[in-house]
Amino acid sequence: MGDPSGIGPEIIIKAWLARADEGLPPFVVYADPAMLRERARLLGVELQITAVAAAGETKQVFRNALPVIAIPLVARSEPGKPNDKNAPATILAIERAVADAAQGAIRAVVTAPISKGVLYRTGFDHPGHTEFLGTLAQRHWPGRQHHAVMMLASDLLRVVPLTIHLPLAAVPGLITRHGIFETVRVTHEALRRDFGIPAPRIAVCGLNPHAGEGGTIGREDEEIIQPAIRELRHEGIEVTGPHSADTLFHAEARKNYDAAIAMYHDQALIPIKTLSFDDGVNITLGLPFVRTSPDHGTAFDIAHLSCARATSLIAALKMADAMSVRRMMAVS
Amino acid sequence: MGDPSGIGPEIIIKAWLARADEGLPPFVVYADPAMLRERARLLGVELQITAVAAAGETKQVFRNALPVIAIPLVARSEPGKPNDKNAPATILAIERAVADAAQGAIRAVVTAPISKGVLYRTGFDHPGHTEFLGTLAQRHWPGRQHHAVMMLASDLLRVVPLTIHLPLAAVPGLITRHGIFETVRVTHEALRRDFGIPAPRIAVCGLNPHAGEGGTIGREDEEIIQPAIRELRHEGIEVTGPHSADTLFHAEARKNYDAAIAMYHDQALIPIKTLSFDDGVNITLGLPFVRTSPDHGTAFDIAHLSCARATSLIAALKMADAMSVRRMMAVS
Repeated sequence: MGDPSGIGPEIIIKAWLARADEGLPPFVVYADPAMLRERARLLGVELQITAVAAAGETKQVFRNALPVIAIPLVARSEPGKPNDKNAPATILAIERAVADAAQGAIRAVVTAPISKGVLYRTGFDHPGHTEFLGTLAQRHWPGRQHHAVMMLASDLLRVVPLTIHLPLAAVPGLITRHGIFETVRVTHEALRRDFGIPAPRIAVCGLNPHAGEGGTIGREDEEIIQPAIRELRHEGIEVTGPHSADTLFHAEARKNYDAAIAMYHDQALIPIKTLSFDDGVNITLGLPFVRTSPDHGTAFDIAHLSCARATSLIAALKMADAMSVRRMMAVS
Repeated sequence: MGDPSGIGPEIIIKAWLARADEGLPPFVVYADPAMLRERARLLGVELQITAVAAAGETKQVFRNALPVIAIPLVARSEPGKPNDKNAPATILAIERAVADAAQGAIRAVVTAPISKGVLYRTGFDHPGHTEFLGTLAQRHWPGRQHHAVMMLASDLLRVVPLTIHLPLAAVPGLITRHGIFETVRVTHEALRRDFGIPAPRIAVCGLNPHAGEGGTIGREDEEIIQPAIRELRHEGIEVTGPHSADTLFHAEARKNYDAAIAMYHDQALIPIKTLSFDDGVNITLGLPFVRTSPDHGTAFDIAHLSCARATSLIAALKMADAMSVRRMMAVS
């Protein structure tokens, strides 16, 4: 459900209402059924919301009702008014979903937006959703190494930022060979396993303008990124770069790779949000379960207006479906 | 002509051949007529190339022939094989064009790509085209302050990078209030005078992800950019920001401003080249004459293939025409 006072409940209801038109796979919501019913009333829509005892009941319920695994809220939730008291339920919903994924009861986890501010005030100590999911993966799949990598994807582009929510001044110091190795390897494996691309092509952005222009505009491209790419190619991964990032995202250039690795937040998010603002999906690669989410936040400022669009959540549901089907096929 | 061994001569010839279809304004080339004739033969196209004594003859010649003000080359120029000996002619062509602009013989200067490598080896000591034009402006229009600002523009977006060809690590230290003042003021004045926008709206990007998210991801957005914007608003300029750069360039967001100011190279060039790879134009604002250029380099690697597209040069010619007409109307 994400933060119940954000647009999460609204877009979940709207996605369920669009299930037939959009051809969505059956999904179950980890949320407070009473909260969802109240939100449906506020939205002025009629729908049946049915609490189920286990995720396995989803399929038989889904056609006629929105199936819910009950995660009770402590306080009444009002759209646009985040309430710290409901933070534990927000966290529990994620924990329960991952536990169900670990038991094979669900194929994938799709998360609605959470508010880091709300969670931090109640002692949540993970930088974000992605890292928390990494910790849960460790809990349920012990003894494995999990390197969670964020990908943003749409029909037009897949892009992976090497560094994310950092001051720009901190970025150059955090561009390391090791980071490039891990990120490219996880991306490569995910493209094969979850996206069904037998020989993935990966393009790596340079850090500096024109990828350093032969070392005349910064040294990192020549000294760190290029050697890392060379080593990855020796491993047999089809990876190219460092490319001048400005000329890597137009239609012709995008034909040459299956995913691009960007060095920092804006270098990755500017192209994907410029090309695919409404239907971009956030995907966590490198976890033992499929996880996607819409590519936007809680939007507290518009949560009382009933105007939120479910396009990105719908894209996230479809992506989770396609990825988990491919992963099951790869395993079997 | 730009560097005669780049694609400049080829795209100039192709633009002239397209003059009627594209509705191009008359233009005169500062180049070696023999070089252009040889290039036309290589391209396998028939055209008349006519040396003129002065730019004033352009109009009567242009319909039937490509008018040229002769700037003789010292050495034969071969496509794809840059020759340092021709660097002085490349520089002289720019100097002569600016001198003609200063005398009112031409309305605007459109430059073809030059090679900084070639020019540097012969003692040229300006960081690039734009700065060189600033020096020439000082020569011909002494006693005025010239603050040359680079804008990239297409039908979809106008964007101005505050810093350009610098290592990313150097960028945060060069984000200053003064730089933002100058860049926004020059952009504002140019939007009024050259683009005919009476009350221009300018959007400023943040430096850090999510424009610093209230100071939690870097301090520059709150401590430098925000106060600069506040002061500019006091001056009466309609400027907003700092905006999260990733959500500033999709179609809906672009409706809210006439130009965006980016903090660094890739933040500006990724959106414009993603949206408008073929028809982006490079414009120098803040000069006493109109100057545009295609948004690409010399492309030595494809200069012998006859496959270069003149789309960006054609867009640059049209932009120079429109801007100079508006500037004349604003003056009169």
